[in-house]
Amino acid sequence: MKAKRFLLIHIFLFFLLSSAQVAIGQNGFKIIPLGVKGGLDESNLSAYLVAALGTNDYICLDAGTLNAGLQKAAQQNLFGEKDATLIQKKYVKGYFISHAHLDHVAGLILNAPNDGPKNIYGFNSVIDVLKNNYFTWKSWANFASEGDKPILNKYTYNYLLPGKEQIIPNTSLTVTPYPLSHVSPYESSAFMVKNKDRYLLYLGDTGADTVEQSNSLHALWEVAAAKIKLNQLSAIFIEVSFDNAMPNKSLFGHLTPHLLMEELNVLNKLSNDRLKQVKIFVTHIKPCENCEATIKSQINKENILGLSIQYPEQGKLIELTY
Amino acid sequence: MKAKRFLLIHIFLFFLLSSAQVAIGQNGFKIIPLGVKGGLDESNLSAYLVAALGTNDYICLDAGTLNAGLQKAAQQNLFGEKDATLIQKKYVKGYFISHAHLDHVAGLILNAPNDGPKNIYGFNSVIDVLKNNYFTWKSWANFASEGDKPILNKYTYNYLLPGKEQIIPNTSLTVTPYPLSHVSPYESSAFMVKNKDRYLLYLGDTGADTVEQSNSLHALWEVAAAKIKLNQLSAIFIEVSFDNAMPNKSLFGHLTPHLLMEELNVLNKLSNDRLKQVKIFVTHIKPCENCEATIKSQINKENILGLSIQYPEQGKLIELTY
Repeated sequence: MKAKRFLLIHIFLFFLLSSAQVAIGQNGFKIIPLGVKGGLDESNLSAYLVAALGTNDYICLDAGTLNAGLQKAAQQNLFGEKDATLIQKKYVKGYFISHAHLDHVAGLILNAPNDGPKNIYGFNSVIDVLKNNYFTWKSWANFASEGDKPILNKYTYNYLLPGKEQIIPNTSLTVTPYPLSHVSPYESSAFMVKNKDRYLLYLGDTGADTVEQSNSLHALWEVAAAKIKLNQLSAIFIEVSFDNAMPNKSLFGHLTPHLLMEELNVLNKLSNDRLKQVKIFVTHIKPCENCEATIKSQINKENILGLSIQYPEQGKLIELTY
Repeated sequence: MKAKRFLLIHIFLFFLLSSAQVAIGQNGFKIIPLGVKGGLDESNLSAYLVAALGTNDYICLDAGTLNAGLQKAAQQNLFGEKDATLIQKKYVKGYFISHAHLDHVAGLILNAPNDGPKNIYGFNSVIDVLKNNYFTWKSWANFASEGDKPILNKYTYNYLLPGKEQIIPNTSLTVTPYPLSHVSPYESSAFMVKNKDRYLLYLGDTGADTVEQSNSLHALWEVAAAKIKLNQLSAIFIEVSFDNAMPNKSLFGHLTPHLLMEELNVLNKLSNDRLKQVKIFVTHIKPCENCEATIKSQINKENILGLSIQYPEQGKLIELTY
């Protein structure tokens, strides 16, 4: 009798722990790119869902295209459901906006009527534009928590502070934001996402420190390097908008393959030559006839460090177990 | 010798007149819908290219989705070229914006970097939002001709006056705008497009007069009825956003099948029962699981007048020879 009770308790504990494991998630990340391009094509603009491995509790990093991207993801059967609007409402737990240029927020604003209640996270500079330019009743109904009345209160603005870790309700993730320069004084953001002892770094639009006359990237690389040296950084999502032919004066706060490689060399040195262990995902290529091929070839040519460089695809799941 | 010269002059005149015919265009219209839905899906939002039959000189009525729609149109081989950005730059001669809600302007703003120089036409209320909310350097670079500096001057704002006919350079079309009510006092617009002695009427978002406590639609129907009685109105593009189940207080300045039919009955009476000769295109259905099927069935059921009611499809050419 005692042995039976002992066995039952063990079985109960086993199931309890297994289900807790599923709920809390595993080490590592799931990423679903909902849009990967740097402009023009309204159906494929910057937006990345990120969750802890083993969960479906996503945060959305930037929100240029949501519905059209979720339709593609649903076709890949990445959620139990097929309806993009339902998926967004159910699985996206909050939005982190790097900056408020339209190609990073259009999907959030356009899909607000069928979404929420949820949090929108951003620096003051980002929330101010959402409040004063988009959710104003002139461009769009005010679905947010502040600004022009009536306030519909579907989204609650959360003001981020540089370097301050933010807990995200309904997920096991935290996010720490860092400022980037996107044609000074226009501010963009990087988000360091944490799951247990692993990190994923996402950068919004950014110029190179040399071009922007800034040290924002250098400061960010110091934070990233500390984690690389502890084997804790899984991936970096970083933009390359134009190919090397674009002169510095026409970059408008963006990177080229050459500038990317200059920056990654800085990071590699700060990381004691260990950047190879981090997956680099190149985002935000601006569409033109041969731009994508040219940029990939130029990056390949300058990748003398032998870094793992990849290109996210819309609706295609990325799993990072490292 | 005299006979030969006579013949040559005739041949010359024949070619001169034929080529003039091509350049000026024929009676009637070509329409290419670039986006037809009333929200959510970023790849298919309100935008309609309209040209005189026999020409490729288009104006764009609203501009919710441009690039993704032009990609679809290019797949149908509707232009000699395949590149959506080149097609937009070359064949779109100006933009008429009914109102500045994001689902009617996102494509214009997102594609501005690779477009222009061109004119944007709208009422003061529309230009004000473009100027103060979108082309501001906060939401987007200022590609327009007024507002926050530096002014990039790719687009020139043209302020329309209600009822005043506007000539459109580089086309054989004119446009006369009329105000609509989209939750009073928010103003939307209808555009009466003229090619020779034929007309096409496009309505932006609008509520019914009964719900909006307005007479905007009645005033527009009087203008339209005069043209119907002269056999001059080819088509009406008009919105139905929600099905009949949506209560009036939740319509947010939109039509249902029932309200559409009420309004078209008014127009039919004013036209001496001749609305049947006009093609009605229903636009701006807001996506949901069964909305499209429900709306079509409800319109069908209430169409006791036997009107010609159709549904535009993205990227699919409509030719109106009447």
